[in-house]
Amino acid sequence: MSTVKAEIIAIGDELLYGQIMDTNSHWISQQLDLVGVRVVRKTTVGDNRLDILDAFSKAEKRADIILITGGLGPTQDDLTKPLMAEYFECPIVEFPEAVEAVTTFFKRRGREITPLNILQGHLPACCTYVPNEVGTAPGMWFSKNGTYWMSMPGVPHEMKKLMKDFVLPKLPQLFELPVIVHEVIKTVGIGESWLADLIKDWENALPEHIKLAYLPSLGHVKLRLTGFGQSKENLQEEIQSQIAIVMPLIQDYVYGYNEETLETAIGKLLKKSNKTLALAESCTGGFISHLITSIAGSSAYFQGALVPYHNQFKHEILGVSDVTLSEFGAVSEETVREMAVGIKKLFKSDFGLSSSGIAGPDGGTEAKPVGTIWIACAGDGFVETKKLQLTQDRLLNIELTAVAVLNLFRICFSRK
Amino acid sequence: MSTVKAEIIAIGDELLYGQIMDTNSHWISQQLDLVGVRVVRKTTVGDNRLDILDAFSKAEKRADIILITGGLGPTQDDLTKPLMAEYFECPIVEFPEAVEAVTTFFKRRGREITPLNILQGHLPACCTYVPNEVGTAPGMWFSKNGTYWMSMPGVPHEMKKLMKDFVLPKLPQLFELPVIVHEVIKTVGIGESWLADLIKDWENALPEHIKLAYLPSLGHVKLRLTGFGQSKENLQEEIQSQIAIVMPLIQDYVYGYNEETLETAIGKLLKKSNKTLALAESCTGGFISHLITSIAGSSAYFQGALVPYHNQFKHEILGVSDVTLSEFGAVSEETVREMAVGIKKLFKSDFGLSSSGIAGPDGGTEAKPVGTIWIACAGDGFVETKKLQLTQDRLLNIELTAVAVLNLFRICFSRK
Repeated sequence: MSTVKAEIIAIGDELLYGQIMDTNSHWISQQLDLVGVRVVRKTTVGDNRLDILDAFSKAEKRADIILITGGLGPTQDDLTKPLMAEYFECPIVEFPEAVEAVTTFFKRRGREITPLNILQGHLPACCTYVPNEVGTAPGMWFSKNGTYWMSMPGVPHEMKKLMKDFVLPKLPQLFELPVIVHEVIKTVGIGESWLADLIKDWENALPEHIKLAYLPSLGHVKLRLTGFGQSKENLQEEIQSQIAIVMPLIQDYVYGYNEETLETAIGKLLKKSNKTLALAESCTGGFISHLITSIAGSSAYFQGALVPYHNQFKHEILGVSDVTLSEFGAVSEETVREMAVGIKKLFKSDFGLSSSGIAGPDGGTEAKPVGTIWIACAGDGFVETKKLQLTQDRLLNIELTAVAVLNLFRICFSRK
Repeated sequence: MSTVKAEIIAIGDELLYGQIMDTNSHWISQQLDLVGVRVVRKTTVGDNRLDILDAFSKAEKRADIILITGGLGPTQDDLTKPLMAEYFECPIVEFPEAVEAVTTFFKRRGREITPLNILQGHLPACCTYVPNEVGTAPGMWFSKNGTYWMSMPGVPHEMKKLMKDFVLPKLPQLFELPVIVHEVIKTVGIGESWLADLIKDWENALPEHIKLAYLPSLGHVKLRLTGFGQSKENLQEEIQSQIAIVMPLIQDYVYGYNEETLETAIGKLLKKSNKTLALAESCTGGFISHLITSIAGSSAYFQGALVPYHNQFKHEILGVSDVTLSEFGAVSEETVREMAVGIKKLFKSDFGLSSSGIAGPDGGTEAKPVGTIWIACAGDGFVETKKLQLTQDRLLNIELTAVAVLNLFRICFSRK
C-alpha cells in the first residue's frame, strides 16, 4: 500500500493580497491528516489563467487527489470553472439538476435569480455535479488517469459541507488508506535544544515508521510522535510504549497530551483536588486571569484576580507592607511574596499567584533592566518565588510571564 | 516601471498536517501589498528535500523576491539551511558574528548554550547574515541573478521583526516601487452594511484612482482608502480631502486612523485630560485589563482591575449590595451599575467600567440565555449602562464585550 498524496490549491487574488486569510487549506489539511491522506503541498494562486493552469498540471504530477477552493463566483474574474473545462478539454454545458438547485436556492430566500446565477448551473460536461446545499456554486468532481479532483467554493462553511458530505466519505472507497496515529506530548519550561539533548538517544532509537517532530511555541515545546502502519491499535500501543520510555527523562516538563493546554491542565489539577486559585497580576495586567477564564467551567476553581497597577493598591487592597515596597521596590522577591499571600487571603483561595516586573519598553534601570520579572506561588504554609529575565518586548514579556506563572503553579502544586 | 513580483514559501510538515496554521504568509502578503509588491504565489511544502528544492527552483523562475519561513530550528528535521546551501552551491561555514549573537542570546537569559545551538551560527557562506534579536535562528539573505531571497524562522514574532527591521526597508532600495498611499479610518459600533449605506453616495463619487475597501473585524469595521499615482504628497492631500467629506457622516463611530486601536485611542483621551480608569470585570475575566495594559505607558491613566469571579467578592471587595445580587442577579443592570461605582471608589479613579454576563457555553436560562451581558461606565455623578445580546461562543463573547465596554467608555467620556 503506497501513501495517498493530496494537494490543496486555493485560488483568488484576495488570498495573495492578504485581504482574506486562507483558513480553508488548514482545515482541509487537518481532515485529510485524520484519515491518513498525506498532504504534500499547498499552493495559493491568483485569478490568473496561466498560474492556475500551471498549478493544475504540476499538482497532477504529484498527487492522487487534488482539492481546489475558490474562484467559483458568478462574475468574470472567477476562473476556476472555465479553466477546469479547458484543462480537461470538455465544453461547459447546462446541468438541468444544477440549474434547478440554484433556482430553488434563490426562491427559498425570496430573492430573484439573475442570468449570471443561472449560469452557475452550467458545468464542464466531464465533471460529476456535486450539489451545494448551502450556497450557489456547485462542487465539481473529476477523475482522469487515476487522479481525482474536487473543486469547491471558497466560502468556508460551503467548502466544509462539501468535504464532509462528499469528499471525506468517498476517500476510503477510492483508496486503500494507511493508518496514521499522532500523539503530542506537551512540555513547558525547557527549550527545544535542551529537550533534544535530553532525549537524543531515545529519538535515534525510534523505529523508522515512527517520526518525531519538535513544535516550539511561546514558552512551550510540543513533541509530536507520528506513526505510520497497518493497525491503529498496534500503532497506538507502540507509540504509548515509546512514550513510556521517554517520560522518565522529561516528566518534570510534561503537563499534558494532544489538545491539553497549560490552562486546562491546571484547571483539572484544581478541580480534582477541590482547590481554588486567585491571582495578583501586576506586570501581566490581567492576561493570566484571561487565560484561566477563557476555559468554560473555570468558576469551579477560580476565585478571581486583582490587577493592582500602582504600589498604593498593592498596599491598600493586597496588604503588601509599605516598608517592603519602599525598601525592595515593587519588582522584588519580597513584594511578589506578599502579593501572593495577600491575594490568597483576599479571595479566600487555596493558592495565590503573583507577578511583578518591568514589562517594558521603558522603566528599566541598571539593577532592574526591562524584562526583569518576579513571580510567586503561595499555598498553605509555603511560598515559592522565581525571577525571570526576559525580553525587550512588552507583549512577549507578558505572554512568557503568564506561561512561567502557570508553570510555577503546576510545580508548586505537585510538590505540596 | 514593471510590477515587482514576490513568492512566499512556507516550510514544515506541521503546516501540511494542519497542526499549525500558517499565519505568516498572510501577514507577509499584507505587508507587501502595502508597499506595492505583488505576491504571485504562496507555496507550502513539508520537511522534504526534493519538494523544497523544487519549490525554490520554480519560485526563482517567477519572482523577483522570494520570502521563506520555517525549517530553521536546531534539530535534524529542519532542512531549510542545508538546502539553501545546496541550492546556492556554497558550504555552511561558521559566521563568528552569528555564533556570538546566539551565545549572547543564551547568556542574557542565564542559560547554558548547547552544541546544537552554536551550530545555529553556522550559515551558507554565500548568504548575508541577518541578526535575529528575538530568537536563535538568524535570517539569511541571498542574491543571485537578479532574484533576492530571504529565509526567516517560522516563529511569527521573529519573522515579523526580521521583515520590519530588514526586508521591508530594503525593498525600495532594490526595486522601483509604485506610489501607493493607504489611509485607514477605524470605526466601532456600526455594522458593515449600515456603514456602506451611510456613505454610498460618497463612495460612488470617489475618483477612479482611489479605491475603498471595507475590512470588518470583531466589533470593528476599517475603511481603507488606497490611492495609486505618481506623487505621494498629491495622493495624501487628495485622500485627506475625501476623508474631510465623509467624516461628518460617520464621526460618531470613528475612534482613530491607521495604527490606532480602541485601547490606544482611549489612553490618549485619558492622558490628555489627566483622568484615570479602573475595571471590574466579571464575564470578561481580565481581558479588558490585558488590552489596556498591553499599551506601554498605560500606568499613567490605568489604576487597576478586579476580576470578582463569584458574587461573594462582588459584595465583599466591590461593595455590590447583597439585596441587588439576590434580587436582580449577577447579570443585571443594577449589579453592573454598582460594580462600576464600586471599582471607581476602590481604585480612587475618575472612571469605573464593569462587565457581567453569561459568556457560555453553559449557564444560560430562559430569561438570561448565553450571550446576555450587561456593561456599565461610571464617572463623577453618572452611570451609563448597556445590555448586549451576543453569541453562543465563549471567547467571541469575551472579545465582543471588551470592544463594547471600551466603546461605551469612549461615548461616555465624550458626553460628559
